[in-house]
Amino acid sequence: MEIKVVRRIMEANEQHAEVVRRRLREAGVIALNLISAPGSGKTSLIECAIRELKGKVNIGVIEGDPDTTRDAERIARLDVPVVQINTEGGCHLEATMVLRALDEIDLNALQLLFIENVGNLVCPVVFDLGESHRVAVVSAAEGHDKPAKYPALFRTAQVTVLNKVDLIPYLDFDESQFTADVRRLNPDMPILRVSCRTGEGMAEWVRWLEGLLNKEAVMQ
Amino acid sequence: MEIKVVRRIMEANEQHAEVVRRRLREAGVIALNLISAPGSGKTSLIECAIRELKGKVNIGVIEGDPDTTRDAERIARLDVPVVQINTEGGCHLEATMVLRALDEIDLNALQLLFIENVGNLVCPVVFDLGESHRVAVVSAAEGHDKPAKYPALFRTAQVTVLNKVDLIPYLDFDESQFTADVRRLNPDMPILRVSCRTGEGMAEWVRWLEGLLNKEAVMQ
Repeated sequence: MEIKVVRRIMEANEQHAEVVRRRLREAGVIALNLISAPGSGKTSLIECAIRELKGKVNIGVIEGDPDTTRDAERIARLDVPVVQINTEGGCHLEATMVLRALDEIDLNALQLLFIENVGNLVCPVVFDLGESHRVAVVSAAEGHDKPAKYPALFRTAQVTVLNKVDLIPYLDFDESQFTADVRRLNPDMPILRVSCRTGEGMAEWVRWLEGLLNKEAVMQ
Repeated sequence: MEIKVVRRIMEANEQHAEVVRRRLREAGVIALNLISAPGSGKTSLIECAIRELKGKVNIGVIEGDPDTTRDAERIARLDVPVVQINTEGGCHLEATMVLRALDEIDLNALQLLFIENVGNLVCPVVFDLGESHRVAVVSAAEGHDKPAKYPALFRTAQVTVLNKVDLIPYLDFDESQFTADVRRLNPDMPILRVSCRTGEGMAEWVRWLEGLLNKEAVMQ
């Protein structure tokens, strides 16, 4: 009985994700689903990308949070379209929430859409949002053992962003172990080392985003 | 239909939590449920407590993780009884899992039991494990906005441990905002400032634990 209900939720999610995917494709929009633990710096990563790509790429943002609209307010200050999804305590975004958010955004005016998931390394992983790519974000302060302990995210992501690398001198962070664990789960996935605070690695993050947009432009 | 199933899960959990609570009470054991985001330092906090209280207090540990047995191995090195609960991707512990773990531990030989939940600020909050007290752990590196964004944990905890305070000089962490948000959610809850890495605040953490044990001793 319980299993049946779970299956129905997942099937409904898959159908909604397909609708999201079709709408994105029709509008020629690349959508990124950012998944991480709370406080890994997803909002900061999005802010940096917006600043760097402003005037070159039209960007929109969907912000998921269990409570408050703080992240959406941060993004709105950068003068890009942003929609807040408040999950009211819920631990992940689902495709149907994204679908409702898309009604508030003019997709045809965008090329790139960031979807910031609820801070959680477990539950968001099993819900396809119809995204083009999944971005795993880890803060170095969380420790090098996160990929091994939360493997599902790293198996299903297309890029890993290791954030807050400026803190590494003050941490017991074994970066070679971190890299080896990510490689074991997902051998070809790029790992970007960044610090939103110092700006380190931001050029690589922006280059990775531009690479996606160029690929999309060639395909159209 | 979905709501009915959820209610049945929560009712079953509540019944199992009552059994856990009774078994703990009969054995005179204080059990702490540690909840935090991934990588906030729950295992390190437990390790410090074990080192400080060794020879004075008999301690046991239940370790919850979605994958690997790394944390249990770390604890086992300190030569205390430890049981690993592997949730196989699951995002929280439930009382029935704790109940099964208790069968592996001689409760009558213990005074203090740490239960380390899966790293997640959302889902573990709604599952009573039958614990005596709930401990909210936050790493300063996660940012001062965590209590506001994940309020349910801070409303239901009996103590907040702010860990990794040694990193604050290298972060944009507004500690007065953090404290104000915690106070707003839970006015009388103690907030302990610690660093497992430097040892700062460990005396207060241990004193808080000893306070619980003394109260328990008086009540018996």
